[in-house]
Amino acid sequence: MIDRPAASVDAGRLWERHQRLARHGATSNGGVNRQALSPEEFGAWREVIGWSRELGFAPFTDPAGNLFLRLDGTDPAAAPVLTGSHIDSQPSGGKFDGVFGVLAGLEALQVIRESGTRLRRTIEVVAWMNEEGSRFAPGMMGSAAFTGVTPLERFLDIRDAAGISVRDGLAALRSAFPELPLLPLRRPVAAYVEAHIEQGPVLEREGFTVGVVTGIQGKRTFRVSVHGEEAHAGTSSRLERKDALLAAVRMIHALEAATHDAEDRIKFTVGSLNVMPNAPSVVPGAVVFSIDLRHVESAALAALGDRIPVICAANAGPCTVDVRELTNALSLDFPEQMTRLIRESAAGLGIPAMDIYSAAGHDARFLHAICPTGMIFVPCKDGISHNPRESAKPEDLAAGTRVLVDTLMALANP
Amino acid sequence: MIDRPAASVDAGRLWERHQRLARHGATSNGGVNRQALSPEEFGAWREVIGWSRELGFAPFTDPAGNLFLRLDGTDPAAAPVLTGSHIDSQPSGGKFDGVFGVLAGLEALQVIRESGTRLRRTIEVVAWMNEEGSRFAPGMMGSAAFTGVTPLERFLDIRDAAGISVRDGLAALRSAFPELPLLPLRRPVAAYVEAHIEQGPVLEREGFTVGVVTGIQGKRTFRVSVHGEEAHAGTSSRLERKDALLAAVRMIHALEAATHDAEDRIKFTVGSLNVMPNAPSVVPGAVVFSIDLRHVESAALAALGDRIPVICAANAGPCTVDVRELTNALSLDFPEQMTRLIRESAAGLGIPAMDIYSAAGHDARFLHAICPTGMIFVPCKDGISHNPRESAKPEDLAAGTRVLVDTLMALANP
Repeated sequence: MIDRPAASVDAGRLWERHQRLARHGATSNGGVNRQALSPEEFGAWREVIGWSRELGFAPFTDPAGNLFLRLDGTDPAAAPVLTGSHIDSQPSGGKFDGVFGVLAGLEALQVIRESGTRLRRTIEVVAWMNEEGSRFAPGMMGSAAFTGVTPLERFLDIRDAAGISVRDGLAALRSAFPELPLLPLRRPVAAYVEAHIEQGPVLEREGFTVGVVTGIQGKRTFRVSVHGEEAHAGTSSRLERKDALLAAVRMIHALEAATHDAEDRIKFTVGSLNVMPNAPSVVPGAVVFSIDLRHVESAALAALGDRIPVICAANAGPCTVDVRELTNALSLDFPEQMTRLIRESAAGLGIPAMDIYSAAGHDARFLHAICPTGMIFVPCKDGISHNPRESAKPEDLAAGTRVLVDTLMALANP
Repeated sequence: MIDRPAASVDAGRLWERHQRLARHGATSNGGVNRQALSPEEFGAWREVIGWSRELGFAPFTDPAGNLFLRLDGTDPAAAPVLTGSHIDSQPSGGKFDGVFGVLAGLEALQVIRESGTRLRRTIEVVAWMNEEGSRFAPGMMGSAAFTGVTPLERFLDIRDAAGISVRDGLAALRSAFPELPLLPLRRPVAAYVEAHIEQGPVLEREGFTVGVVTGIQGKRTFRVSVHGEEAHAGTSSRLERKDALLAAVRMIHALEAATHDAEDRIKFTVGSLNVMPNAPSVVPGAVVFSIDLRHVESAALAALGDRIPVICAANAGPCTVDVRELTNALSLDFPEQMTRLIRESAAGLGIPAMDIYSAAGHDARFLHAICPTGMIFVPCKDGISHNPRESAKPEDLAAGTRVLVDTLMALANP
């Protein structure tokens, strides 16, 4: 047992790297604001690249702004095994979401290398560009472009709230890291495994250290633009107003009622809403809001999502409304060969594991389209995520990493 | 008639000055974004001060950031007559709101001076600080502080969205105009007359060139802060969420229903609403929105306004809500001596005038607390204001200015 690389996973080192990455974009309340292609994310890149060079893993990138670190295999012709996640965060995110997958991958490369084991396939650790989608919507751009699920060109003109485009952000990234080799998109991949905190309460509640993820809940996202007419709050006739905010309020109120289910299986969220011109004594002329709709069953998700434009139009009143769908992802199941391998890795290490379904979306969704894909979850405190209070235990992170090590070794040496 | 200063009002010059001021903070859609104490407003100050020096009217300021231009009277001991309005704008404002009152005052000083007429009282033209209240809420800070209705100290720590305080803004103003003499607040005033575009459709519809304003509609404003808890849009149980935006939507929906009246006399507006953290896949943790409530009858306004905190609390669900009242202004009537004087001035000039009630608030509200006050309205196109499409006719602006000239001369020479 002592010679196995998985046994050498260092919980303290792994924890320390989480704390060091959390300095990039640290917020005063203990959280992290490190949005895609921001100076804060560039700082985190620099940190990861520094570790990688120190340990002898060559870093490189691609046209979609994904960061890769490589442990070479003995057969250069064999497609690599990929592992990783992302290091961008929500505006008020925590220290573990995404970061754990990247640092678990780095830890895995380190213990495999230090054990002297040579594997047939190259293993690459990846940090995907813009998983979160909070600065540039939709999220998971890097993995979508890498896999070819969505051509990169379709993302380039998307802009953040300040008017900066993804194209600008990628150019800034290239300028910040001109020395990194640029590999093409759509390279062949033998398999993909992503480690991640659960972002839900199940593992903690059930008392398991590792979750073998069997699939990902489907999700549809929309951007709703309501157009009315600006007017003076004191003088304009209420009956003649075209108040874009009141129209948006009617829509959201009706959408909430339409997505209510006693079983609590439908997840309906309006996370972002912006009012123009957003001044106390001006009747709003325009409102743009987001809709995030999820359901485990693809048929239910399809039916509910299709009602959204209808409900918005019915509640527009004197305003006009445009509903644009940004994401339409069905629920998916990971292949049995991958869940079995992860389950067996955990069993071999004596780590208690249970099957679990992912309610959150992950880059694994897009990798699933091109190669055998699986995910490893570890518990997070009270199931809280996308929140500065997001937390996980060092020993759980290490346990998940050990399962990752054995899974990667099995995949890289078939 | 030819010798009367009012006859010398130059419609072309007055119009041209409106166009020149509109360059400061000009937006691409023909509107103006010139918020209080901003570099754009400083640019407009510079322009007005330049005209004033050219014409020989001494400019000065006060601790509240109000700008004054003075035409000296023959009796230095007599309290001055004030006229003016404001040159700050809404974020998507027009070229005439406020600006007309200041430029009509400047035109009045110019034609009186050029006629050689000497008046007993000094006449001062004033541009009040932050009438609009869109950058710093509440509005009408300059006139509130000047009259002592609200001590200046109470405004100094109020901050804009970027965290800049009124105190900082006033310091920036002093640095930009260090040469301007600083006169104290709460100086005695003999009378105040404010010229303004109507910001409503009545004069245009009824075919009158001038409105003799008989009073101002009451207004109550509130800031509502809703606190919930951030959570992941895909994983958090909907039943356990504390979604601050859904709570705010329920409140606004209920408030709209509670303020609905078939006669269209209640004006209820939520003009500004901000979501934290405002990311598509994060359940909102906090929402802050504004309420602007107006009614001609003070009793109705009082009763309706008192229900607002109750309705908000009843719809908070699992969230908490704090409702803070920012303004509570009763409806008011201007004194008969002032409305009669304006009515007679219009009649003497053969300009068709009608009595009109102001649905919008103005700095005149606070001057009314310390001296005889009146207002002169001119029509604006389609009643549209707080909008880039705000428009007025050169000849109407000139007619309102002629009435102002005769009114000021009567007040300054009693």
